[in-house]
Amino acid sequence: MTIDEQLDILMAGTAVVIGRDELKERLKLGRPLRVKLGVDPTAPDIHLGHTVAIEKLRQFQELGHQAILLIGDFTATIGDPTGRSVTRPPLSREEVLANAETYTKQAFKILDKEKTEVVYNGDWFRKMTYEDVLKLNSRVTMQQMLAREDFKNRVESGKEVRLHELQYPIMQGWDSVEIRSDVELGGTDQLFNILVGRDLQKEEGMLPQIAMTMPLLEGLDGVRKMSKSYGNYVGVDEAPDMMFGKMMSASDELMDRYYLVLLGEKRDETLHPMEAKKQLAWKITARYHSPEAADAARSDWETRFSKRDLASAALPEVEISSLPEGTALTIVAYLFENVFKIKKSNGILRKEHFTPGAIQLNDVKITDPAAVLELTPESILRLSKKHAVRFK
Amino acid sequence: MTIDEQLDILMAGTAVVIGRDELKERLKLGRPLRVKLGVDPTAPDIHLGHTVAIEKLRQFQELGHQAILLIGDFTATIGDPTGRSVTRPPLSREEVLANAETYTKQAFKILDKEKTEVVYNGDWFRKMTYEDVLKLNSRVTMQQMLAREDFKNRVESGKEVRLHELQYPIMQGWDSVEIRSDVELGGTDQLFNILVGRDLQKEEGMLPQIAMTMPLLEGLDGVRKMSKSYGNYVGVDEAPDMMFGKMMSASDELMDRYYLVLLGEKRDETLHPMEAKKQLAWKITARYHSPEAADAARSDWETRFSKRDLASAALPEVEISSLPEGTALTIVAYLFENVFKIKKSNGILRKEHFTPGAIQLNDVKITDPAAVLELTPESILRLSKKHAVRFK
Repeated sequence: MTIDEQLDILMAGTAVVIGRDELKERLKLGRPLRVKLGVDPTAPDIHLGHTVAIEKLRQFQELGHQAILLIGDFTATIGDPTGRSVTRPPLSREEVLANAETYTKQAFKILDKEKTEVVYNGDWFRKMTYEDVLKLNSRVTMQQMLAREDFKNRVESGKEVRLHELQYPIMQGWDSVEIRSDVELGGTDQLFNILVGRDLQKEEGMLPQIAMTMPLLEGLDGVRKMSKSYGNYVGVDEAPDMMFGKMMSASDELMDRYYLVLLGEKRDETLHPMEAKKQLAWKITARYHSPEAADAARSDWETRFSKRDLASAALPEVEISSLPEGTALTIVAYLFENVFKIKKSNGILRKEHFTPGAIQLNDVKITDPAAVLELTPESILRLSKKHAVRFK
Repeated sequence: MTIDEQLDILMAGTAVVIGRDELKERLKLGRPLRVKLGVDPTAPDIHLGHTVAIEKLRQFQELGHQAILLIGDFTATIGDPTGRSVTRPPLSREEVLANAETYTKQAFKILDKEKTEVVYNGDWFRKMTYEDVLKLNSRVTMQQMLAREDFKNRVESGKEVRLHELQYPIMQGWDSVEIRSDVELGGTDQLFNILVGRDLQKEEGMLPQIAMTMPLLEGLDGVRKMSKSYGNYVGVDEAPDMMFGKMMSASDELMDRYYLVLLGEKRDETLHPMEAKKQLAWKITARYHSPEAADAARSDWETRFSKRDLASAALPEVEISSLPEGTALTIVAYLFENVFKIKKSNGILRKEHFTPGAIQLNDVKITDPAAVLELTPESILRLSKKHAVRFK
């Protein structure tokens, strides 16, 4: 493959790239490039939002470059303040290590484990003394930090920025020096942090890393960035049925975006949108499970929702004793949030779900949010066209 | 002595005090208060500017309180950015320790060595890891730092503030937690740093320290703060003659200020200003040397300058071979700067010194700055009414 062909593959689907020409020159060196993706194990699961950069890392790997998965076990104790409007609570070391373990396991659904270098940044940061920290800090100016949109906005709007948060970009940058990365991947919101690494590498007399950012993926709400904390995510480790079902809940507009960002292709306009969505859901499920699992998930989904034969479908089962006491509204809100991981306000539920036919208990329509539901084992509660549970 | 009497003594001569009522309550506890004065051994000598706070510390000590001289051996490697418009170059550990040694030795000209606790902040900061630093930093906000005049002004005027400088106030504050100080003394420019200590102590559940600031002393130029780097200082370790002579070079206005800040009294208006100045110079010289040394210095000064009998006076001796080549102006500027530690611009020298009678070589008046001086051993060059040297 020629350099230009490699470059075309690597540039495809990227958002902002700083140093495209440098990347071309670097590829000409003929050695495997060291390509860094830093992950903050602040949550245990990898979701489709994370996979955008991980898939790009796999492309580098498939072209013979060295993939480096940098686990921010040290930085995670702070939490990346990027894009946050408030300071995060710190995670304990135990939580961080447990998250790192499930996280890497899930990443190897995408990356070739044998060819991936996994490093933990605690290995160097835990050795640093206050003096080392001062030296590191002396290389960065307050002005650089205030140039960051999120810090600047918080300072200007009077929201607090705690000083330890300033350490995050510096540490992420120093990671690049430690691992001598040629390229750093990340979401577009990571550009500032990646450029700090570039600066620190230059100061250390290294070739500065190329900053390659990928688009941020919207979550299932179609509005906010996909994130565990917004409850709008599809995890790569979720069961095939759940994964398929969540993908099917995407709006048509969001489906187009997922086709583009996750599959790198345009939706086939000749297909009915429902069929196109099923094919998207199938491809994602097949990618993280198998074609067979995807077939079964599609078939089950069709049984449950398309054919409306809920009684024979493999529905999520819910213990009646686990439910909170309360009205139909309370139960429905609880099930959406806890079984389907979708947070809906009571207002939205009243307006969009307590409409004739939407909610049904054993085929009996429920339209009164204040109704008290008589739940018995084996009874089926349909919450929407796409969501139903069986009680036990 | 009553609490109110103690309070009157302690409040005398102070500038801004935060917590006067708390100080009164603390005095009622009946235990010795822990009174902190932090010194940054960035220069080896204590000058009269430093003594303002050290003399206050001695007052506490004389009243039975515990004086704590905190040597910022760790913080000195950064240098206090307070009031600085640019980042300081860091000092090496060796320089810092050497400075600390002469510094404490000089401080014991004022303090009772046996009753003074001397601590080095490197003892705790050198043990801190990056994690400790993060925890410490998480207690302070960027907004607090930007509230500091000097940081704010530098950020706004586009001058750089390097991030390690933000650590200085945090470390000075943490020192107060470590030593559990009840009172911290400092110049008025230290108020921000002292208040950070107060905040950190509160967070640690301690009684917060009282911030007691003292006026900043102007240097011999009467304009800028007394400082080694401005060459406008009187060191407490300088020889009696030099100390007396430097005090005599103060303007009448500055003499009033020195009376007030250094002696805590008003100048006696019934005395001729020259006599008042001699008494001031005598008192300062006697304080840091002895009454006898002060008598001798006064007598010598009078011989040299008042009685104009230079030939028999004990003048500073200068090797002719050590002088730079050049005109009378070059030689005079060199002697002012190197022998008398007074920096004067060529413009000032031309205007104020090359006037009839001011400069005399062996009683011959020199008025031409471009003249070439014929210097021989034992010749005497008078630079001003108050400055003369003998060559060898």
